[in-house]
Amino acid sequence: MSDAILVINAGSSSLKFSVFLEAGAALEPCLGGQLEGLYTAPRFKAKDAAGNVIGDKQWPEGEALGHDGGLMHLAGFLREQLGDHTLAAVGHRVVHGGLDYAAPLLINSEIVAQLDKLVPLAPLHQPNNLKPIRLLLQNRPELPQVACFDTAFHRAQPAVAQAFALPAEITDRGVRRYGFHGLSYEYIASALPEIDMQAAHGRSIVLHLGNGASMCAIANGQSVASTMGFTAVDGLPMGTRCGNLDPGVVLYLMDELKMDARAIEKLIYQQSGLLGVSGISSDMRALLESTDPKAAFAVELFIYRIARELGSLAAALGGLDALVFTAGIGEHSAAIRERVCRAAAWLGVELDATANAAGQSRISTPGSKTAAWVIPTNEELMIARHTRNILDTLR
Amino acid sequence: MSDAILVINAGSSSLKFSVFLEAGAALEPCLGGQLEGLYTAPRFKAKDAAGNVIGDKQWPEGEALGHDGGLMHLAGFLREQLGDHTLAAVGHRVVHGGLDYAAPLLINSEIVAQLDKLVPLAPLHQPNNLKPIRLLLQNRPELPQVACFDTAFHRAQPAVAQAFALPAEITDRGVRRYGFHGLSYEYIASALPEIDMQAAHGRSIVLHLGNGASMCAIANGQSVASTMGFTAVDGLPMGTRCGNLDPGVVLYLMDELKMDARAIEKLIYQQSGLLGVSGISSDMRALLESTDPKAAFAVELFIYRIARELGSLAAALGGLDALVFTAGIGEHSAAIRERVCRAAAWLGVELDATANAAGQSRISTPGSKTAAWVIPTNEELMIARHTRNILDTLR
Repeated sequence: MSDAILVINAGSSSLKFSVFLEAGAALEPCLGGQLEGLYTAPRFKAKDAAGNVIGDKQWPEGEALGHDGGLMHLAGFLREQLGDHTLAAVGHRVVHGGLDYAAPLLINSEIVAQLDKLVPLAPLHQPNNLKPIRLLLQNRPELPQVACFDTAFHRAQPAVAQAFALPAEITDRGVRRYGFHGLSYEYIASALPEIDMQAAHGRSIVLHLGNGASMCAIANGQSVASTMGFTAVDGLPMGTRCGNLDPGVVLYLMDELKMDARAIEKLIYQQSGLLGVSGISSDMRALLESTDPKAAFAVELFIYRIARELGSLAAALGGLDALVFTAGIGEHSAAIRERVCRAAAWLGVELDATANAAGQSRISTPGSKTAAWVIPTNEELMIARHTRNILDTLR
Repeated sequence: MSDAILVINAGSSSLKFSVFLEAGAALEPCLGGQLEGLYTAPRFKAKDAAGNVIGDKQWPEGEALGHDGGLMHLAGFLREQLGDHTLAAVGHRVVHGGLDYAAPLLINSEIVAQLDKLVPLAPLHQPNNLKPIRLLLQNRPELPQVACFDTAFHRAQPAVAQAFALPAEITDRGVRRYGFHGLSYEYIASALPEIDMQAAHGRSIVLHLGNGASMCAIANGQSVASTMGFTAVDGLPMGTRCGNLDPGVVLYLMDELKMDARAIEKLIYQQSGLLGVSGISSDMRALLESTDPKAAFAVELFIYRIARELGSLAAALGGLDALVFTAGIGEHSAAIRERVCRAAAWLGVELDATANAAGQSRISTPGSKTAAWVIPTNEELMIARHTRNILDTLR
């Protein structure tokens, strides 16, 4: 029987998972799902590759499974489901690889200690990413584990793109523009040659527009610049994150509103962006359906900042051959794609409104100087591929 | 004899001044100079319009003149110099006009109280700007005074360009992208029609590159977007200011380095930018002469961020007809202009290297799709014009 690769994406109260089966050179999706509310009201859901529910369990409110209990439940579920398939390796999404890790990495306890040192760079995410890694190192030390970093793809950027204009004593502590969503961009870069060979060897901007949103300039398959910076709060406005913000605003919040770091963090991560501006929702669908002028303004601001960043990233590329939309909003909101493409007309994008509304892959006209595409992202598959590649070096 | 208009630009320890004489419709420069070191070792210098020294006085180290003593000395000096010319009005550069003041304003004590409310938005500059206004209101209540705001020109920007993606309770306190250097941009916009009528009615980006540096997108004479935001620390890296910075970096400085607001303020206003990155100097000339790789990197980063902002501002304009360089670096550094124009080739800029090196006004080739110009700025004249216009309404 073929080997199975488990992909884990651990958040503060959730575990998302997918299983892929090796099928020759390919990796076939087998099942996937998530555990949510690990510390409050745990709920487990799983579906097979066809979308049929194959697992659904709810624990009583207040019964804290934790990451360890969740992982144990998942292990039991997988033992049942996988039958004669052997779990060959686990690939983990890890938000931060710092400056050193520009590629996926086979994990051992030393590596975990190194990744732990990066916690100050991503205090909200890195510790959660490391939890299942540690648990599996303890309980299944023989099982190969691979860390795949959201920052790694961006390490190809030129030094100027990664730098803030801060003194060396700050920069040398690792205060740099790392960029995130790297596994998504890497997947798109890997898919692009089959879709648009010219753009794949040329200059493209990928718009990863989900609840978290960023954009990446890619030249000949490599990251050249990205809108996210030191943290995932920078760049575009998002569901609840403010995006680009004058650092002087933070000083104002400290001086005038007497806000401390936690209050500012809550403001810029959880109360800003589409939610903060609209006062209504962080969900783009709700805003597009609303008739409230504040909802309309939130959407307008989102489009405007995307348009500005398109220009900025095109500058990093010295021109543009293609736009690629991906992630939740990018894949599913024809209205947003249309408005972005209209704003990008000056960059040579000519929207094919019919193709866009019909959800086709190419949404620019045949004569458009700059192509526009919709390509569904697949970060899990990217992690599975990396994991299999590293596994192959061990076989 | 013709009337004289005094222009004052007051800093924390300095008073810069110029005098213009009314000459029909024109304003002729008469004299100008500065008082420096008002609280440490005061020094007064003045030159006439031809550049001849007409005043030079140094006070002993430790003798604090203050703003009042400095203003008194200036008044005495002007009485001597102006002879039969009447001082008809004083125009003041005031950094912040908030959201309400989109034009220059005749000052009375009520207006000063309003402007005082904006101090939290510009705590380092606004109080100093208001000092000579208050002193003159007390001592020369009959003398018309006009406040000219560095923010006013940008109030024409669309709402999306002025907004951060923050909740209403923060935005409504005035936390917006104001933009600065407005008097410089307004002067350039007023000069452009005589130089490049097509650009004046079209889309231009003005690069105000001095020790403070920003860029402004201007469409048909009106500000559309600017790189500076809530404060003058945002946007481009400057002599000692960091420019654009992920707000998450400020949280990191608080959490990991236990820095308070004053330490962060010092870092991002005084220790960053060209000085911080190079570790050598905040002076572009020194960096261009240096053979140190860190100096070269600081210059490279400066050019790179300008190039990125060019794209971002061109997006706000939907294309570009002209670049205009101004202020210290913009007017005097052919090397910087050349590198910026090269980076803007994708926007249709074709540098005329000979014209640029020779310091000519037009530095793009005759065939360049997008024109590039050098236009010396004159914020003092802009303030004098505004002051005269308001004075005329009183006559």
